[in-house]
Amino acid sequence: MSQKLFNVAVVGATGAVGEQVIGLLEKRNFPINELKLLSSSRSAGTKIMFKGKEHTVEEATPDSFKGIEIALFSAGGEVSKALAPHAVRHGAVCIDNTNAFRMDPETPLVVPEVNIDKVSEHNGIIANPNCSTIQMVAALKPLQDRYGISRIIVSTYQAVSGAGTRAIDEMLRQTREALDGDVVKPDILPVGSLPVKHQIAFNAIPQIDKFQDNGYTLEEMKMVRETKKILGDDSIEVTATCVRIPVVYGHSESVYVELKNDYELEDVKKLIAEAPGVVLVDDPINQQYPLAIDAAGKPDVFVGRVRRDLGHARGLNLWIVSDNLLKGAAWNAVQIAEYIAIEME
Amino acid sequence: MSQKLFNVAVVGATGAVGEQVIGLLEKRNFPINELKLLSSSRSAGTKIMFKGKEHTVEEATPDSFKGIEIALFSAGGEVSKALAPHAVRHGAVCIDNTNAFRMDPETPLVVPEVNIDKVSEHNGIIANPNCSTIQMVAALKPLQDRYGISRIIVSTYQAVSGAGTRAIDEMLRQTREALDGDVVKPDILPVGSLPVKHQIAFNAIPQIDKFQDNGYTLEEMKMVRETKKILGDDSIEVTATCVRIPVVYGHSESVYVELKNDYELEDVKKLIAEAPGVVLVDDPINQQYPLAIDAAGKPDVFVGRVRRDLGHARGLNLWIVSDNLLKGAAWNAVQIAEYIAIEME
Repeated sequence: MSQKLFNVAVVGATGAVGEQVIGLLEKRNFPINELKLLSSSRSAGTKIMFKGKEHTVEEATPDSFKGIEIALFSAGGEVSKALAPHAVRHGAVCIDNTNAFRMDPETPLVVPEVNIDKVSEHNGIIANPNCSTIQMVAALKPLQDRYGISRIIVSTYQAVSGAGTRAIDEMLRQTREALDGDVVKPDILPVGSLPVKHQIAFNAIPQIDKFQDNGYTLEEMKMVRETKKILGDDSIEVTATCVRIPVVYGHSESVYVELKNDYELEDVKKLIAEAPGVVLVDDPINQQYPLAIDAAGKPDVFVGRVRRDLGHARGLNLWIVSDNLLKGAAWNAVQIAEYIAIEME
Repeated sequence: MSQKLFNVAVVGATGAVGEQVIGLLEKRNFPINELKLLSSSRSAGTKIMFKGKEHTVEEATPDSFKGIEIALFSAGGEVSKALAPHAVRHGAVCIDNTNAFRMDPETPLVVPEVNIDKVSEHNGIIANPNCSTIQMVAALKPLQDRYGISRIIVSTYQAVSGAGTRAIDEMLRQTREALDGDVVKPDILPVGSLPVKHQIAFNAIPQIDKFQDNGYTLEEMKMVRETKKILGDDSIEVTATCVRIPVVYGHSESVYVELKNDYELEDVKKLIAEAPGVVLVDDPINQQYPLAIDAAGKPDVFVGRVRRDLGHARGLNLWIVSDNLLKGAAWNAVQIAEYIAIEME
């Protein structure tokens, strides 16, 4: 069996997500001819091992994409906006893990287990959804198909790795400072580019990304808009409260979902257990439910605490956990790349 | 002005809440004649300073309450069940900070800012609600009075101090183990008396107290039942998801509330700002919202992120934070004791 090999670029190769992308391309034995690792000028020159061979990270420029067939972007929205069109011009298909193109009507927003059929509709760019959205829609898709969804109310418990490696470093440093009784110095979180900083060690910060005019943060509005787009139903009412907590890897979510039709609880559990990429961990008697530390390093979405709402007959409560850097980012992107590769063969 | 002085007992004097109760009795200059500090036999003999005088903690027995007029219990439900009736027999009014009598129809369940009128209906015992319930109802009461409440969906972010001083010690130990790359040993959480233990350091555990037959934990059902009882309306639909996170002091709550009547957002903020014991901290532009580390050590309930629900016209989302050992436990109990003292004068 012959297999086409691709010239692949990873933009943001030294970032938290980029590292995971590179690791997954190796682990999945992605059909690569040439691998080009790109970053900002600051990180250019960094050496990264891939399949036993040292690669030097280069500065990403418009000309970096000559000959590239698949480009995975995770270097922030501004970089994607600036460079993805050049990658497309050079003939690459871009899988963009930023907010830059997600709500563009011409850009498919894809979670393979949910709407892989949309992937072929791209004009050169396929958007990878926000981490907190991906795990939620992967878990809810089988319920939508079977019962319909009228409403979602989600509160998140998000890991600091979602804010990058510097945020991880900051939390670990702050935690040591707090344990040692030293003054805790906030430096990056909640939002690196904003003036006010808050301690994340032993705290919960109800702000992820900037506030919008309606009082919701951008992270919350991403969950609202992306959920509707991916599930393909603008009539679903979605509200989100996004909160950063002192966890390194793994986002947890408390999700209330209102179905359009009456459901059987056992059938709901069965649908979740059988859903692709989703693992049911729901055994209260034995105190088994999804935990961030268990999900870390795994590609799946874990769902538990599945129970009937106490107020609404068609309401359902779930606890959804996944590694925000894997299914929430790198793994979802590499899954899309694998579909693209098959399509381009 | 003459003031009657009372013989006061604190049961559970060496526990996390008991310590705060003793501190508040001193700080508030509570009118005390004799202070009796009681505990299990294990902690008996402990020395505790009160108003510059050393007190020795005694083992709590049925006869400990002779001559006691006000007894504050926070040594666990079993202790309250066993000893509060004896305290009542000896003529004491008990303020019980456990689950033992909260849902007893003859026992008032009191948050002074919400239903102090119930306090006089006691038969010797007044129940202090669960920490996570107190802060929520204190914030929601002005909205109930003005608009009516039809529904509440709450997800909590609860501090480990709610599980006692040993749980705090465990979290700090685990955190050091994790930072040092050592094996993390779970020992107490999520529930000391249950066999399965989970790591709390850098994790989120969706279990507080034991699971009930309906798939909810006892902590969640406390929030459901106590909220209805305190707000005096069984028709309010309440659902809760209670989660332990790596925070030492201060419970945070993401609360969705559906009002019975249309509301103006500015009026809601005004009502919250003017509510007794409640502080509005809601300035998104300047990144100001309630934080657990800011609430720690303070008696108030802090409310922010006040915003209109994106789906339901009468829906509202709030972020409610308070020190779980103070307003959530000791301070609410001492507030009740102060009312009792005035009544008994």
